[in-house]
Amino acid sequence: MAHINEHYQKLEAGYLFPEIGRRVRTFEAAHPQARLIRLGIGDVTGPLAPAVVEALRAAAAEMGRTEGFRGYGPENGYDFLIEAIREHDYQARGVEIAPEEVFVSDGSKQDSGSIQEIFSQDCRVAVTDPVYPVYVDTNVMAGRAGASDGAGHYEGILYLPATEENGFAPGPPDEPADLVYLCSPNNPTGSVLDRPALERWVAWALRNDAVIVFDAAYDAFIQDPTLPRSIYEIEGAERCAIEMRSFSKRAGFTGVRCAYTVVPKALQGSTARGERVCLRDLWARRVATRFNGVPYVIQRAAAAVFTPEGRKQTREQVASTLENARHIREGLTAAGFRVHGGVHAPYVWMRTPEGCSSWAFFDRLLEEAEVVGTPGSGFGPAGEGYLRLSAFNQRKAVEEAVERIRRAFGAG
Amino acid sequence: MAHINEHYQKLEAGYLFPEIGRRVRTFEAAHPQARLIRLGIGDVTGPLAPAVVEALRAAAAEMGRTEGFRGYGPENGYDFLIEAIREHDYQARGVEIAPEEVFVSDGSKQDSGSIQEIFSQDCRVAVTDPVYPVYVDTNVMAGRAGASDGAGHYEGILYLPATEENGFAPGPPDEPADLVYLCSPNNPTGSVLDRPALERWVAWALRNDAVIVFDAAYDAFIQDPTLPRSIYEIEGAERCAIEMRSFSKRAGFTGVRCAYTVVPKALQGSTARGERVCLRDLWARRVATRFNGVPYVIQRAAAAVFTPEGRKQTREQVASTLENARHIREGLTAAGFRVHGGVHAPYVWMRTPEGCSSWAFFDRLLEEAEVVGTPGSGFGPAGEGYLRLSAFNQRKAVEEAVERIRRAFGAG
Repeated sequence: MAHINEHYQKLEAGYLFPEIGRRVRTFEAAHPQARLIRLGIGDVTGPLAPAVVEALRAAAAEMGRTEGFRGYGPENGYDFLIEAIREHDYQARGVEIAPEEVFVSDGSKQDSGSIQEIFSQDCRVAVTDPVYPVYVDTNVMAGRAGASDGAGHYEGILYLPATEENGFAPGPPDEPADLVYLCSPNNPTGSVLDRPALERWVAWALRNDAVIVFDAAYDAFIQDPTLPRSIYEIEGAERCAIEMRSFSKRAGFTGVRCAYTVVPKALQGSTARGERVCLRDLWARRVATRFNGVPYVIQRAAAAVFTPEGRKQTREQVASTLENARHIREGLTAAGFRVHGGVHAPYVWMRTPEGCSSWAFFDRLLEEAEVVGTPGSGFGPAGEGYLRLSAFNQRKAVEEAVERIRRAFGAG
Repeated sequence: MAHINEHYQKLEAGYLFPEIGRRVRTFEAAHPQARLIRLGIGDVTGPLAPAVVEALRAAAAEMGRTEGFRGYGPENGYDFLIEAIREHDYQARGVEIAPEEVFVSDGSKQDSGSIQEIFSQDCRVAVTDPVYPVYVDTNVMAGRAGASDGAGHYEGILYLPATEENGFAPGPPDEPADLVYLCSPNNPTGSVLDRPALERWVAWALRNDAVIVFDAAYDAFIQDPTLPRSIYEIEGAERCAIEMRSFSKRAGFTGVRCAYTVVPKALQGSTARGERVCLRDLWARRVATRFNGVPYVIQRAAAAVFTPEGRKQTREQVASTLENARHIREGLTAAGFRVHGGVHAPYVWMRTPEGCSSWAFFDRLLEEAEVVGTPGSGFGPAGEGYLRLSAFNQRKAVEEAVERIRRAFGAG
């Protein structure tokens, strides 16, 4: 008799974004004339940079010629892309990463969901609250958590509240943890970890023999050159951290799918008996067994992001998104809302009106302003009383959204 | 302290193909003038069909325009591709599959490696021997097996030997099993399950409440229209089988990456307490949590395989591969070898010379004929004494490989 993985049954009703999708569809069915502005899902609105489109088209043509055709590629990615990553994302910041430490993938969602597989089931997981749901859900599905408390916390997971008091950037816990997921610039709060904050985390991880999964999917939005872009800019991080980066937001690749994960050779876990094991080798085995590489044409598109034109064009996209974020921040502040984030991140974390829950405000925003946000409580109970607004949209749509929110709710 | 997943340490030294890669590189370093012919990895040699290239290029251009840009797609795949799959792969064979039962993915390797996650850890897994290593390795990594016996078998896994006596197509076991992986047309033996064989498997699975993971990645090579292409052509299979299909071999997509998995809504597993659970819903949750869809441009390329031109062009590719297989089969038979498969499959399963092990023959073939095959024992101990030759290559290369093998080893 085929038994199911009963850990799935511990999961709360729905993954956040499908639930938002359901509510939006219901609203649209009831109001077919509505002109929704979507600042909910952190999805880019494109178009792709010309350098990227050109690379995609050229690679497609190559694949149509016998001499240019490529079948199975290296599971970890083509050298041309790995070299570009090493040079532009690391050497340019003074960090040396070996080619075999880079694993090109089809998304940071996939990587951050899969990384837990190389750890034992008894690892204690720590996450911030609010948090990108994938970190938690994948650990629940793998059996590293007990029952949900109904309020968004699972037994056995250590939650670190991100609050206004700690700048939405909680520091290391006093309690032990084995595997910590950090996201900076942060989804959903838009906060960013500066050098001293990262140094505290690295020191803590080294002291506790813990592993940090550092999700830097939004690093392109960091505007201050003195802020670290990579956790490996912190000394010792190569002995305690795995880093994930993505082309999704930096180059509008959400529908193109390319990312990468760095697992340094110096990073070790241990067996129950204390034997030290290279985590990079475990991840390499995982990738070789369960993955077949990112499409050749997509890797060419990603490599084009690092060309002079690609860098210029994608920098402009990022700047435009940050300009949107500024509009949202300033507009809502002027309207009397309390807002956070949106400086080194494409997300603005707004306080809901007094006494209005996240989902209640989500519904009101949908009905009264026809604007889609993301309820903060969907990312964890400490997100209650907040709403995440994404700056990924056309300028005019963002301006109109801010105007509508101001009209519907504004004190200003 | 971060403990590792110690199940990884049970895995035998290397995934088969990297090991072959290492031996080939060593040979090439020692013989830089060698002109190797690669019939090892089952990789296509392209080029992509013109209809596919055109669709890729058109989709890339679309992504470069604001109105054509697509960000995150539906995790399960775009309707245009799902509809084409339903019509051409199923309705054309009299099988009705609902849209929500189709999950478009980036590869059958990924899907066949991930499917075990929705089952409990105590499920007993059955596989044929020899077998595609991914089915076994992913279950070992997930903790469903004990130690390796050093000869290629893991404790706790039920192996069903595929032998010359049973036509390399073992029937259902007498012992119970919960999760059975079947691949037809078979990798590596090239055998194919006919209707009576599939009926026996479906009846057994329904009787035992077992789930069949039916890997039909090579279905395009079935030449006899009376042979089932899908397990759902067998009555009752929708209550006991998950099916996987791929564009890799049917359309040369090994470097393009697109496949799909069908999980019927009628298929159920059960909890330990006997509660029935819809497996389609579990898989949907897994996909929504851990995947972000196949690139839009790649899904457009896959959909082009179903257009009239795409079907014609890819049918010609498949016919050409099968013609290669016929050359190998007939050439080696004439040279005195015993060969199997290669009729409804791109793989020829050849007996090694008397007294010569699979790896010994692999090495001799490399050294004496400069031809790369795949050692049968790499797929399991029952593959000992066989070598898999892949028909994916240019015609001239295949002809020369056969000629070289004949010269080096032929009795004829």
